[in-house]
Amino acid sequence: MNTTDLGLPMTVPADGLPARVRIHEVGARDGLQNEKATVPTAVKAEFVRRLAGTGLTTIEATSFVHPKWVPQLADAEDLYQAVADLPVALPVLVPNERGLDRALALGARRVAVFASATESFARANLNRTVDEALAMFEPVVRRAKAQDVHVRGYLSMCFGDPWEGAVAVPQVVRVCRALLDMGCDELSLGDTIGVATPGHVTALLAALTGAGVPVSALGVHFHDTYGQALSNTLAALQQGVTTVDASAGGLGGCPYAKSATGNLATEDLVWMLRGLGIDTGVDLGRLVATSVWMAAHLGRPSPSRTVRALSHQEQ
Amino acid sequence: MNTTDLGLPMTVPADGLPARVRIHEVGARDGLQNEKATVPTAVKAEFVRRLAGTGLTTIEATSFVHPKWVPQLADAEDLYQAVADLPVALPVLVPNERGLDRALALGARRVAVFASATESFARANLNRTVDEALAMFEPVVRRAKAQDVHVRGYLSMCFGDPWEGAVAVPQVVRVCRALLDMGCDELSLGDTIGVATPGHVTALLAALTGAGVPVSALGVHFHDTYGQALSNTLAALQQGVTTVDASAGGLGGCPYAKSATGNLATEDLVWMLRGLGIDTGVDLGRLVATSVWMAAHLGRPSPSRTVRALSHQEQ
Repeated sequence: MNTTDLGLPMTVPADGLPARVRIHEVGARDGLQNEKATVPTAVKAEFVRRLAGTGLTTIEATSFVHPKWVPQLADAEDLYQAVADLPVALPVLVPNERGLDRALALGARRVAVFASATESFARANLNRTVDEALAMFEPVVRRAKAQDVHVRGYLSMCFGDPWEGAVAVPQVVRVCRALLDMGCDELSLGDTIGVATPGHVTALLAALTGAGVPVSALGVHFHDTYGQALSNTLAALQQGVTTVDASAGGLGGCPYAKSATGNLATEDLVWMLRGLGIDTGVDLGRLVATSVWMAAHLGRPSPSRTVRALSHQEQ
Repeated sequence: MNTTDLGLPMTVPADGLPARVRIHEVGARDGLQNEKATVPTAVKAEFVRRLAGTGLTTIEATSFVHPKWVPQLADAEDLYQAVADLPVALPVLVPNERGLDRALALGARRVAVFASATESFARANLNRTVDEALAMFEPVVRRAKAQDVHVRGYLSMCFGDPWEGAVAVPQVVRVCRALLDMGCDELSLGDTIGVATPGHVTALLAALTGAGVPVSALGVHFHDTYGQALSNTLAALQQGVTTVDASAGGLGGCPYAKSATGNLATEDLVWMLRGLGIDTGVDLGRLVATSVWMAAHLGRPSPSRTVRALSHQEQ
């Protein structure tokens, strides 16, 4: 059975949802940075090229962190230069001013900083308090904005934290406000350990818009650890969110099992949005083919249900 | 990390959702009927017992089809008798009057017939037209109701069909009406090939309630083939549905890959409902332990993301 040839999913719009969603594709960066065996730069570049060929318009390419921290990203310069000609937005992560310098030297026009909503994760990931981390980002954001570079602020642990448990909504709102006041153009609200549920998503988004944050400045970044990513996305769409992070093939974040998933799979997202009649510009068949190609390179099947179903992929 | 010990997911109710959901657990029947190696009756019975111990109140036990069709269910009598003492509802499938006779002889108080919304599947599964199948069920339902036995009507292919593609909403409404007029107490709307998306779910439910069907008579049965089952469930809850079919561990329906999933995993559903503050009466830890036990027996990991995350199960 090839369901897409049968015109499936059937397009049936729902009330109160946006007409268009921009997918912020993180597979090439977030997806591959945890690979044990470093993926060759040429393969990463080809992956980004193929992703661009599917119609995705925002493809996070790499991260200018120190190679000591993430050896898999030591090729950031080479990779960026290999794909810089593509007619898509290619945001890159910059952890500090040194990272920003490297990105700007290559002509990057979109950068992202990554903050934490919780003290425990700020300490674990950045070796700083939440406020110390914000202070570190302040000059990064200021200098980027001075050059009219678009700045995204990632915020981790917006719903739950592996040390602290539930994360209070006001705590998240406070850090969001600080990032926006600093000059961030958009935020990505991360459910880093995948524990969010739809009511929690709705409550956080309502609190943020209630605090004066325009919904157009808010993206969502859900993990599928407990299978909740897509229902949480639906809740976010119902609140007017139009930027959704996803990872082709569900690459990245395999905390427990070889084929368990961290990131929401872009294909599963596109399937839902297509059914809802929400335009993404993405060719689902090409995207599945790209993920199958990448899965073959990595030597393990994609955890995306849609990739498996449409590729008849055997484990 | 043990997220549930951390009090996760955080409970944050959402507006407009039911306070309580009844899970119709299908793992023991729908989940195991496709196993290549027949599962021993004692293991099935133990599985049903353990499921009952989790707080599930409706556990579909088996199907009284002819053993020639589904040899895995040839032990229907033995299995039913082995679990009949449990203080839970134990519905059984009956394909025809002969199946009803067998179920009634054992004292079954809840039976289910299974119809198709499409001609192609009626032909493939029942070797009849849709109306011929309905005619076959008419005496089954009538005789069951005459004995005050509760009758569920399963309806397959409510959203898409592998031969016909998209299934028109009015066609589904017509067959639903016929089943209810015949005397069925409740319906289970099946997305047999997993192609539904939330707007389609909303449209079908709105059409049914618009046609005078009380939402309390409607259950939903989603498959996770494309990862859509939980977001579709959320859409159904938003329409007032309070009966949701699910399969412990996501057992059953592996059309493409060893660990691809057919049925919505009960654990993933319970995680969402728990986060939404919707009462199910189910102990998630016990349910995960039950699915891990069953997975060990079957020799392959559960496809449920929640089972994997909470059990740290390796593939």
